[in-house]
Amino acid sequence: MGMRRGTNLPRMGDFNQSVILEAIRRSGSGLSRIELADATGLSAQTVTNITRRLLDEGLIEEAGRTINGPGKPRVTLRLVAGSRLSIGVHLDPSVITFVLLDLAGAVVRRRVARTPATDPHLIVEAMAEAIEALIVDAGADRAAIAGVGVAAPGPLDAEKGTVIDPPKLAGWHRVPLRGVLAGATGFPVTLEKDTTAAAVGELWTGQGPADESFLFVYLGTGIGAALVRAGDPVRGSSRNFGEVGHIIVDPDGPTCTCGYRGCVEVVCTPQAIVERAERAGAFDAPMVRGDGDEVDERLASLCERAAGGDPLAVELLRVAARDLTVLIAALTNTLDVDRVVLGGPFWSRLAPAYLAEIPALLDARNATRALRTLPVDGTVVGDDVGAVGAACVVLDSVLTPRASDLYLED
Amino acid sequence: MGMRRGTNLPRMGDFNQSVILEAIRRSGSGLSRIELADATGLSAQTVTNITRRLLDEGLIEEAGRTINGPGKPRVTLRLVAGSRLSIGVHLDPSVITFVLLDLAGAVVRRRVARTPATDPHLIVEAMAEAIEALIVDAGADRAAIAGVGVAAPGPLDAEKGTVIDPPKLAGWHRVPLRGVLAGATGFPVTLEKDTTAAAVGELWTGQGPADESFLFVYLGTGIGAALVRAGDPVRGSSRNFGEVGHIIVDPDGPTCTCGYRGCVEVVCTPQAIVERAERAGAFDAPMVRGDGDEVDERLASLCERAAGGDPLAVELLRVAARDLTVLIAALTNTLDVDRVVLGGPFWSRLAPAYLAEIPALLDARNATRALRTLPVDGTVVGDDVGAVGAACVVLDSVLTPRASDLYLED
Repeated sequence: MGMRRGTNLPRMGDFNQSVILEAIRRSGSGLSRIELADATGLSAQTVTNITRRLLDEGLIEEAGRTINGPGKPRVTLRLVAGSRLSIGVHLDPSVITFVLLDLAGAVVRRRVARTPATDPHLIVEAMAEAIEALIVDAGADRAAIAGVGVAAPGPLDAEKGTVIDPPKLAGWHRVPLRGVLAGATGFPVTLEKDTTAAAVGELWTGQGPADESFLFVYLGTGIGAALVRAGDPVRGSSRNFGEVGHIIVDPDGPTCTCGYRGCVEVVCTPQAIVERAERAGAFDAPMVRGDGDEVDERLASLCERAAGGDPLAVELLRVAARDLTVLIAALTNTLDVDRVVLGGPFWSRLAPAYLAEIPALLDARNATRALRTLPVDGTVVGDDVGAVGAACVVLDSVLTPRASDLYLED
Repeated sequence: MGMRRGTNLPRMGDFNQSVILEAIRRSGSGLSRIELADATGLSAQTVTNITRRLLDEGLIEEAGRTINGPGKPRVTLRLVAGSRLSIGVHLDPSVITFVLLDLAGAVVRRRVARTPATDPHLIVEAMAEAIEALIVDAGADRAAIAGVGVAAPGPLDAEKGTVIDPPKLAGWHRVPLRGVLAGATGFPVTLEKDTTAAAVGELWTGQGPADESFLFVYLGTGIGAALVRAGDPVRGSSRNFGEVGHIIVDPDGPTCTCGYRGCVEVVCTPQAIVERAERAGAFDAPMVRGDGDEVDERLASLCERAAGGDPLAVELLRVAARDLTVLIAALTNTLDVDRVVLGGPFWSRLAPAYLAEIPALLDARNATRALRTLPVDGTVVGDDVGAVGAACVVLDSVLTPRASDLYLED
């Protein structure tokens, strides 16, 4: 029937505990009980009760006293970063990246492996082995690990825990990735779209306010979007938010498999940019293998030449930035966000050319430019944003207060 | 600093009261206290306390007893529909529609006035007079009126309460509509985009579950979108969600003021459909006045001829449906919603042609079609959806439980 549920005292207690822990985590150097009451709006008594529980659970510690005028000295409460850990895995057609993350969002250990051929069972086996090696190498306490997050290209079947049709992984069809990996590792596994994972990574490790809103545009083998609204990642009804590949951005662009011309998929992806560069005569010979590595090399070469002032390379990246801006404007005008963050595996390469072009072009297409200009930033997380984000998804689901957690269960 | 806030007992009490009232309102024929506890997850004691408060405030009443096996008879609690009222105003370039709505979402009184010229001061004056006449004609108790909601074309400046650049209202520039109308009527005034108001109207008066999610596509002088997610209207950071006019839907379409070709604004609006029909030779002569009324007449004629089987008219509406589907698919793939609702002033006319074409075309462009098909429905509210929605916005903001209401204030 979908009736809205009420709330009660135990729900409230859990929620307020998450709020306090988040405030301490985000403060960096710690907060006193009085500062916590001020920041969260909770009473001094509630703060005292909750911090006692967090101290007992080892999630926070007392970190010195400050004498601040008359009265009792204030005790600073600080996060115990190593008290909870999580593992993030980013599945990409060519490499799989693994990170072990602590509660402060710091990468404790990192590991990269080539994606073994396309046999999904070999891939899952290799994942489980790499996760085990990561834990052993770091000397991590298994009991402190909250779970494994896997970031994969969408769309996903969230109910079954499968990746539906991953690009360039031909043998991969409806593999129950989440279940098989949970069985092989003994950890709870969360499957998330790479784009959403990246946005959660930005939210969790970034310096923005806890309740910030932004659009994340993910530049990977495909282009995807993710949304954080008032500090909450927006996942959509089937956890497939942000499938933007067939939004038209260039009416004069190449034909797409969908029957139209100039979709994001055939205009804005690294492969599309490299193919346009080929058509423009930027390379002496066409691609030989046409795989991800070769696209990667050619895009890298194009970006280097543009940085060196090569006019053709500069123009090609200017056009690529213009085309991507048509997508970004479609999304910001639809979603009404305050800020755009760009990231993903190809971002660091494209950043100089894109950050020079996109802000002004976006302003010209901004439906609310009478009210505001939209800042466009690069991700703070770096090239591992997929894996770091996947690990953050696990911590986020366990630790971040969500108003929806207050509802009584059915 | 944007720290997330905690919650406390008084917040919880207000929230649970809203949950109970919503459950009773949505039940139609009423619910017993035991049914309420079951539907909301709240304890019998909490339900008893809250319903006593609602009875005292006159929002609900006891409506008979049911004997159901042994034990005490159950008392049915029912909404007192007239206990709270609200006024909705839909500002359109040619007509202004006014409704007086009761708590059950029923239109108590309705009134339509031509939009007087383009002098904004005359418009606001006429609005205030019409509101007064509506109240007097209905013999309504002013004390029961929760406020006035105004639906207007976006974008809006929500902070200042102004409509930024309404189409076809030339004299209208940065008029502080909300403030002036509040001064003239003595009621609190809420300004909302027509698209969002329509979606709230659908949510409030529709038969869907309280926590449903849908995309609302609004067919007015312009085309707009609105989103309801888990029973909450999504308004965006500046309350301007859904500015979709420059999403490209036809690479072969006419040139747009934005410099591209085939944007929604020059392809999907009633004016664009009529102009395409003119170019195709569907009318003997070009438009004379070119105003909203003439566009309306021509669109009506086109729809009538299509209903009668005229092949050119059928084909023109088929193309219009195809173009609109490209927009709808861009939005459903981005937003990941379960359902699409179409509505707005031009909907009832276009419904037969559009409902015959859109569902199958949308399925072909659905990124998650491996998981689900997306139902496409017409609005249940009818042609007055803007005004009814604006009135619902007022009731919704006063009465609907929102998890975000649980946060302690800064």
